[in-house]
Amino acid sequence: MTHPSAELARYVSELDIESIPQPVLRRAEELLLDTLASILAGSHGRPVLSIAAYARAMGPAEGPAQDMAARRGTSPVFAAMVNAAATHMVEQDDVHNGSVFHPAAVVFPPAIATAQALGRSGRDLLAATVAGYEAGIRIGEFLGRTHYTIFHTTGTAGTLAAAVATGRLLGLDPAQMLHALGSAGTQAAGLWEFLRDGADSKQLHTAKAAADGMMAAWLARDGFTGASRILEGPQGMAAGMSRDADPARLTDGLGTRWALLETSFKYHASCRHTHPAADALLALVTEHDLHIEDIGDVVAHVHQGAIDVLGPVVDPVSVHQSKFCMGVVLGLIARHRRAGLPEFDEALSDPAIADFRQRVSMRLDPEIDAAYPRRWIGKVTVRTRDGRSLESRVDTPKGDPDNTLSRAEIEDKALRLGCYQGAATQEEVARLIAQVWGLADCERVGWFL
Amino acid sequence: MTHPSAELARYVSELDIESIPQPVLRRAEELLLDTLASILAGSHGRPVLSIAAYARAMGPAEGPAQDMAARRGTSPVFAAMVNAAATHMVEQDDVHNGSVFHPAAVVFPPAIATAQALGRSGRDLLAATVAGYEAGIRIGEFLGRTHYTIFHTTGTAGTLAAAVATGRLLGLDPAQMLHALGSAGTQAAGLWEFLRDGADSKQLHTAKAAADGMMAAWLARDGFTGASRILEGPQGMAAGMSRDADPARLTDGLGTRWALLETSFKYHASCRHTHPAADALLALVTEHDLHIEDIGDVVAHVHQGAIDVLGPVVDPVSVHQSKFCMGVVLGLIARHRRAGLPEFDEALSDPAIADFRQRVSMRLDPEIDAAYPRRWIGKVTVRTRDGRSLESRVDTPKGDPDNTLSRAEIEDKALRLGCYQGAATQEEVARLIAQVWGLADCERVGWFL
Repeated sequence: MTHPSAELARYVSELDIESIPQPVLRRAEELLLDTLASILAGSHGRPVLSIAAYARAMGPAEGPAQDMAARRGTSPVFAAMVNAAATHMVEQDDVHNGSVFHPAAVVFPPAIATAQALGRSGRDLLAATVAGYEAGIRIGEFLGRTHYTIFHTTGTAGTLAAAVATGRLLGLDPAQMLHALGSAGTQAAGLWEFLRDGADSKQLHTAKAAADGMMAAWLARDGFTGASRILEGPQGMAAGMSRDADPARLTDGLGTRWALLETSFKYHASCRHTHPAADALLALVTEHDLHIEDIGDVVAHVHQGAIDVLGPVVDPVSVHQSKFCMGVVLGLIARHRRAGLPEFDEALSDPAIADFRQRVSMRLDPEIDAAYPRRWIGKVTVRTRDGRSLESRVDTPKGDPDNTLSRAEIEDKALRLGCYQGAATQEEVARLIAQVWGLADCERVGWFL
Repeated sequence: MTHPSAELARYVSELDIESIPQPVLRRAEELLLDTLASILAGSHGRPVLSIAAYARAMGPAEGPAQDMAARRGTSPVFAAMVNAAATHMVEQDDVHNGSVFHPAAVVFPPAIATAQALGRSGRDLLAATVAGYEAGIRIGEFLGRTHYTIFHTTGTAGTLAAAVATGRLLGLDPAQMLHALGSAGTQAAGLWEFLRDGADSKQLHTAKAAADGMMAAWLARDGFTGASRILEGPQGMAAGMSRDADPARLTDGLGTRWALLETSFKYHASCRHTHPAADALLALVTEHDLHIEDIGDVVAHVHQGAIDVLGPVVDPVSVHQSKFCMGVVLGLIARHRRAGLPEFDEALSDPAIADFRQRVSMRLDPEIDAAYPRRWIGKVTVRTRDGRSLESRVDTPKGDPDNTLSRAEIEDKALRLGCYQGAATQEEVARLIAQVWGLADCERVGWFL
């Protein structure tokens, strides 16, 4: 079989770690640390605690995989489910611009849980991570922009990414891997409708993508079969859930292009769609030394996807929802020159932010929209109280591959996230950092913390 | 809130068993027996055994809910998952014509598991069943025919039906029930692509609909929120997965129309889309006393949905796939005047069937297509070897509400299914029958068998 799904399955099944360039493996370690820290920061979130309670009610009381939120052992699927819910809770995990997909939240939790349960090596975990990223990102790109207008790609493409990462650690051959893709794709789900209510579904989407993809891979190892063309077939994902799917994207540059290197670290603690404008405003207020009271109104010039996702959030009532509100995000930048976790915790009770966000609007910008999703350009126009009209533009948001974080910055971010709301101590996070930087030499992936 | 999703949630939350007509409750018992027998008949299926092995690997080793396939206790979600996979395995569970939806497979397993785990009464289980049927069928009708061309409605609408049935037993109030619908709808999945390969996804779809719907309800009880308009909202299920959704169907006749009474029992052990033509051919060969060797070729006149689902199955290689092959089904009728489980087990090794199915074709019939899905009309044209052209027509397939099975016929079917491949003894099935007929007086739903 030579169709795109089969080619992709063969590639990720046969990928040899020796063929993966060193910078890709090092970036995979950095992404792992960013993920573990995100899990800690998210572990106290109410939706995460609900999912953890469900795991406790339905899963075994102990097991070989680590539920990092509850710091207990359980079976791999419940560890993956809870950790994936936690990863995405505080919106600080990574994003791939071209596919508008958050790979870490759905790749690492099932890969870690499976590696722990089977006693696989650090190198095996890194190879599985790379396989999951390379497949998931291409599947997200394949599904296209029309898919993303309704479906949460991290939930849908994420189910297949989780299956690939898990399948690598289970040693699936190409045929089994194709079955795993089939069983994952037919479970793929996640709708944006929840944003209108500020509901908890985002945590459910990452939790279920991780768990369902894992199930697909475990079933495939046992001989359970799936559709061979779940992605591009006439009754497959693209047929049902996209109008601009491009099968060529599924195998784009396999073996030469490393999509994992294209992911961005999140710098602000908000939806990625707010970051370009936030960076542009940060540059502007810094350059002109403006304070929140100096600003009359702000127009954020954005791509259509930002309007689709952020547009429904007109009156945020929760911390989580406020991370999807352009007005709150720009308000925090104007007020604190930061939009981190502590700033968001105070945002909704701050009258200055409530006032400011009424004066922020989004406007579709043809140039930005045409460049998206390959490039996420940020532009803002600020009218000051004293009558000036100022403009600012950022071509590459902070954290993007061309403007990435150093290992020191990543460690600093990990410390801030890991210690958020007392999830871990500074000493624990320091040990975690050392453990991750030494992962490639680790014979068996043990528990973290 | 008065939109259709909220109305539906309120109705199923507040439904009083005293308001449910006795014939509806009695039919619910009959459907329960049909389901338990289907579980037994399907419990040896390879895909079911894979899912049962997964449940064993990931779930607790014991628990208050009964995995009937393995005859062991486990947590509710794994019991629901395995039993739902088994229910649909031999294609003998019920179907609702208007929504092309198999309610039993996704309603009973999570309801039984939850009732067992919480020690609820037989009446509670019956009320939960009715609630699950009334909601799930209306949601299937709402999603419409365009949905069904790509998506397996039993997987998608089934997730919400499972949430409703579970939510009733958890005592969800209307607001919680609406959250459960939101969390269920955003997990809803299931693509027909697997049919092209004869893959195992159908069991995965029912297993996951039952398990995911249950999760949605349990999370809602814990305060986990979902989209309030997951069905009809601008980024909800209809927006993403249908082009002809009709919100009025969601609340059609609530409280006066009992959709549960509209479901059909399956008489032949094959995909429901083959039944009208099979009944028409059975009438024809009986009337004209034809044997398989007398028949030259057969044209089955069908609705478009039959072509969509059965059309891809041109060369069946498994027993399961042969149940989706019009040629095999009509071949069994011509040869045995029966298309039950034992006949299907022998079909693929029978050269007479292999020869016959090459001479069967399907043709779209405008009258049948216009009547579908409200009515499933069967028409066949047979050309005999001796040159006659014969026609036959059936307006109501056997097992439909207007041509239903008696309790004696249902007991007989239960005995045949329950004892299939030695799943249970005749004595066990006889006790099961008595247990189900006495369910309404049962203070606590115990284990079956």
